Amino acid sequence: MNTIGYTFRFTDFGESHGVAVGGVVDGYPAGLHIDNAAIRVDLDRRAGRTLPVEWQFAVSPRALSEQDEPEFLSGLLDNITLGTPVAFLIRNTNVRSEDYETLKNICRPAHADAVYQNKYGIRDYRGGGRASARETAARVVAGSMAKQYLQTRNITIGAYIAQVGDAVTQEDITSLLKRVKAEGDSVGGIVECVVRGLPVGVGEPLFDKLPARLAAAVMSINACKGFDYGSGFCGVNQWGSDLNQVSGGALGGISDGTDFHFRCVFKPTPSMAKNIPGGRFDVCIALRAPVIVEAMAAMTIADLVIQSESGI
Amino acid sequence: MNTIGYTFRFTDFGESHGVAVGGVVDGYPAGLHIDNAAIRVDLDRRAGRTLPVEWQFAVSPRALSEQDEPEFLSGLLDNITLGTPVAFLIRNTNVRSEDYETLKNICRPAHADAVYQNKYGIRDYRGGGRASARETAARVVAGSMAKQYLQTRNITIGAYIAQVGDAVTQEDITSLLKRVKAEGDSVGGIVECVVRGLPVGVGEPLFDKLPARLAAAVMSINACKGFDYGSGFCGVNQWGSDLNQVSGGALGGISDGTDFHFRCVFKPTPSMAKNIPGGRFDVCIALRAPVIVEAMAAMTIADLVIQSESGI
Amino acid sequence: MNTIGYTFRFTDFGESHGVAVGGVVDGYPAGLHIDNAAIRVDLDRRAGRTLPVEWQFAVSPRALSEQDEPEFLSGLLDNITLGTPVAFLIRNTNVRSEDYETLKNICRPAHADAVYQNKYGIRDYRGGGRASARETAARVVAGSMAKQYLQTRNITIGAYIAQVGDAVTQEDITSLLKRVKAEGDSVGGIVECVVRGLPVGVGEPLFDKLPARLAAAVMSINACKGFDYGSGFCGVNQWGSDLNQVSGGALGGISDGTDFHFRCVFKPTPSMAKNIPGGRFDVCIALRAPVIVEAMAAMTIADLVIQSESGI
Amino acid sequence: MNTIGYTFRFTDFGESHGVAVGGVVDGYPAGLHIDNAAIRVDLDRRAGRTLPVEWQFAVSPRALSEQDEPEFLSGLLDNITLGTPVAFLIRNTNVRSEDYETLKNICRPAHADAVYQNKYGIRDYRGGGRASARETAARVVAGSMAKQYLQTRNITIGAYIAQVGDAVTQEDITSLLKRVKAEGDSVGGIVECVVRGLPVGVGEPLFDKLPARLAAAVMSINACKGFDYGSGFCGVNQWGSDLNQVSGGALGGISDGTDFHFRCVFKPTPSMAKNIPGGRFDVCIALRAPVIVEAMAAMTIADLVIQSESGI
Repeated sequence: MNTIGYTFRFTDFGESHGVAVGGVVDGYPAGLHIDNAAIRVDLDRRAGRTLPVEWQFAVSPRALSEQDEPEFLSGLLDNITLGTPVAFLIRNTNVRSEDYETLKNICRPAHADAVYQNKYGIRDYRGGGRASARETAARVVAGSMAKQYLQTRNITIGAYIAQVGDAVTQEDITSLLKRVKAEGDSVGGIVECVVRGLPVGVGEPLFDKLPARLAAAVMSINACKGFDYGSGFCGVNQWGSDLNQVSGGALGGISDGTDFHFRCVFKPTPSMAKNIPGGRFDVCIALRAPVIVEAMAAMTIADLVIQSESGI
Repeated sequence: MNTIGYTFRFTDFGESHGVAVGGVVDGYPAGLHIDNAAIRVDLDRRAGRTLPVEWQFAVSPRALSEQDEPEFLSGLLDNITLGTPVAFLIRNTNVRSEDYETLKNICRPAHADAVYQNKYGIRDYRGGGRASARETAARVVAGSMAKQYLQTRNITIGAYIAQVGDAVTQEDITSLLKRVKAEGDSVGGIVECVVRGLPVGVGEPLFDKLPARLAAAVMSINACKGFDYGSGFCGVNQWGSDLNQVSGGALGGISDGTDFHFRCVFKPTPSMAKNIPGGRFDVCIALRAPVIVEAMAAMTIADLVIQSESGI
Repeated sequence: MNTIGYTFRFTDFGESHGVAVGGVVDGYPAGLHIDNAAIRVDLDRRAGRTLPVEWQFAVSPRALSEQDEPEFLSGLLDNITLGTPVAFLIRNTNVRSEDYETLKNICRPAHADAVYQNKYGIRDYRGGGRASARETAARVVAGSMAKQYLQTRNITIGAYIAQVGDAVTQEDITSLLKRVKAEGDSVGGIVECVVRGLPVGVGEPLFDKLPARLAAAVMSINACKGFDYGSGFCGVNQWGSDLNQVSGGALGGISDGTDFHFRCVFKPTPSMAKNIPGGRFDVCIALRAPVIVEAMAAMTIADLVIQSESGI
Repeated sequence: MNTIGYTFRFTDFGESHGVAVGGVVDGYPAGLHIDNAAIRVDLDRRAGRTLPVEWQFAVSPRALSEQDEPEFLSGLLDNITLGTPVAFLIRNTNVRSEDYETLKNICRPAHADAVYQNKYGIRDYRGGGRASARETAARVVAGSMAKQYLQTRNITIGAYIAQVGDAVTQEDITSLLKRVKAEGDSVGGIVECVVRGLPVGVGEPLFDKLPARLAAAVMSINACKGFDYGSGFCGVNQWGSDLNQVSGGALGGISDGTDFHFRCVFKPTPSMAKNIPGGRFDVCIALRAPVIVEAMAAMTIADLVIQSESGI
């Protein structure tokens, strides 16, 4: 389904080469001022324009130039939320008029083209369609709204690039990106995210545990192949006495009042210059992922905060 | 919430020291014979009784001796499913009559006692309550039923211990477990799981992708700290050209007809002899986790298979 | 599905001739004392034992003698709710040991036997199965719990018989019931219900309006054929200037702080002495319906009250 | 919430004086051609333009002149559904530029203004906002799509005016409407609806019975005060032996293969010339309701048909 959340709900729509992408945020608390500038900053982050200058060569030129601007359709009066659904759309301006007929019968390897064709008996052959990363623009808008709500609770969410390939410092990452780019290849990356200010009690037993819900939300992002938190996969080598009661932010799946740390990994994209000469692709899609990770975390936490405040 | 799934739905109830644990399976297809012996085998696996003999010393004696037997309350006629909800319970026979009064005001560190107390203003102080691993017995029964349904579709799910601490062979694991036990300590582990026979098309865009839903289901298990699939976290060090189109079983979040592989990591338990002299604890709780991982995977996949067969 | 509600959720299970009927209440606020005596009174009302003596001849003797006693399995400590799921069961003691083989291939007319057989390819031929009014015992237990929660908000719900056939006074109803009984026939009835103490703001736009949710809940009761509120069906003959701003308790589907009145109609049962000589049936099933109507209303309003208190 | 349905899901957004109303249809089967002309006919019906000429004087001139045209944003390729969410919007062209400041502090009696203000602490004072009947335009578009899907199953839904005030023939209705109009008053009406072609087995026990779900859907329409089916409220005066096994289309809440008949009642609107001199209002809002009733019935039945076809 294309809806996520129970109380704070986001319904997402749109294909990459259709009229628009967008969404409907339902359950957003009334009376909050929506800061459009903050949304614009997040869309800039998604485009790669806020990355360190020395990394920007590694971003697809098309992404860098995208000027997405959401049009809000409902739920606001003078930019104040009414408690009714907030719908918005972002028109797809990059849809070119070229003849797509040649793509009609080609399913790109390592893409979702063939599974969509098989599952639905039809697909939007003009591009990635619903499976394109284009849809993340809508997530970023809704996520930015969710972060603004969480700020009223003093909860902040920050994600950043922790690793690219085997490189973990900005300098090493720069060198690695250059090397990968030179080979026309692509490389994976790890994004880390910290949630600060969570009160005790966010997350629900049994199946809506905070880490479980965050894992689902983050792993719904294209190319994300793993999620861990606290001691995570590295903890397998530790003994119980080493862990020193580090909770990772949750006990029994419910926030314990300490910061919540999680990581997620993005695989190298299969679209690369080596395979498609002349194409200008992201060398490492993880670079532009942090704001999307924040968006998914923010929507999930907003949902669980509202649930925990309802006293059930 | 204590319900998981949309079409195949499992509602779980019970505290460790209450009358019973159990659950209600709703949406189970009608006309299938339920194999009680297969359920019993899965409960034996959860108790640790099917582990290699040389590992059994590492299992809590209480777990090894648990003789759980589900009582089915509804949804069956001569063990054939009626299409109506299948409710079952497992009575808590290990609840001792001792005086729990002394535990009333003690919240064990690194357990969920304090967060439950804070969230609900009350908790079942007689034991782990709702946060106890006791509830996984109900998951195993429902999961065993889900696996039986999937077998009618030729889908099989198998999970196994892949790593304990840094040991990856049965022999090395045995030595490590002995060492950890001797120190009164505990150690983490990694469980791997393979899903075979999945047709193309299982999993839904955008937020009910197969890996996203599996991640949530598996990470709702106590002590699970991470989930990955396909190239996973290890893939961060690979380049796009290395991956050679390995899909990991899903493209765009939808099964592509190949086997689906995933891993999950369990942290060392904080309950260990070192901390609580005289206690007899699991040295590595991951040892008994594979059947629970299978259960969560099976329920999730049953839910998504039914959805994909409904043609939406 | 066998679950109703979003935040206050009730999952119901059980066939009339299976082991038990029962349910799981999830989302019940923590820290409330459950009054078992009040539940017992409601089960007495369902059995018909609290009806005026002069009406009791019109109730099935089997119903009158039913001594249902719920066994609580979870969610309670010393009868205080823990905030975890409250599961309970009521064993089916009236299940006779007779040979049901003769019923195996008979679908009773005007009953759901044939549609169940057709929909599921199987049915519980030992009795009404899932479609039997037996399941309402579980609704009454959960509804009684819901009413206890609502009392903490000073919200009360009271339903009563307003009409039997064309009779609207106790005396006329008595005479009519005698006449219908004498003919071995059955007759319909109307139940009215008043909800008092609702604060302003209960009910959600657009599809979870208070009257919409109540209608669905009440019309899920067997034999209920209609629901109206406020001016209702009678209002069709009124002009706008007559209505004098009577809201019926809700405006735009949201409670407005006045009492909420609704009615529902129960058809005459198709099981009657005329058709099945020797059978001893309810002459008017509406007589025992008010407590079930209250139960469905209480669960629905509890769900919507919790939602409205969560501030979304 | 602003979403209805489980498998066929409709999310509705928009205020009467905001940018647009619209919605997202999720779960619509792939590969169907959407007939825009049929949608336009349904929007014409909603505007009152297809009513008998002699009734059109009774419709608000503004409604009659509304030229709503949905813009589809996603989910379609050459008007064929892709199996992805179909989003659409209808811009609000009637939003006048007048100064709304004077309305800011006025809550119209018998409207939802005050309950919205109370519930959310804010409301869209420029008009009825979310509570305006304007939102039904979006329902009609989604409902028209649902009817097109049902036609592929040979299921048809037709609603019509059965009664206005106490008048039940076209001639009497015409006279009555003239009389009411002359007095500057308003009058209620009853809409009947017949669902033909339903296979056996549509509707789910226990809480998603066909009549229960239809009641909720229809009663979510503004001004609808009651719903009944089969023998309905009139059946209260009948005896069991009269009913002659008339099922009304469902047994145990599940369709039995016969036509399903239901009725719903709309109260007279509180907005009338008598109260607001110079205003030009609908004399009987029920006149334009049948297409909205069809829409709600169609979405509900599409949802339940998909569920029943999924074999759960």
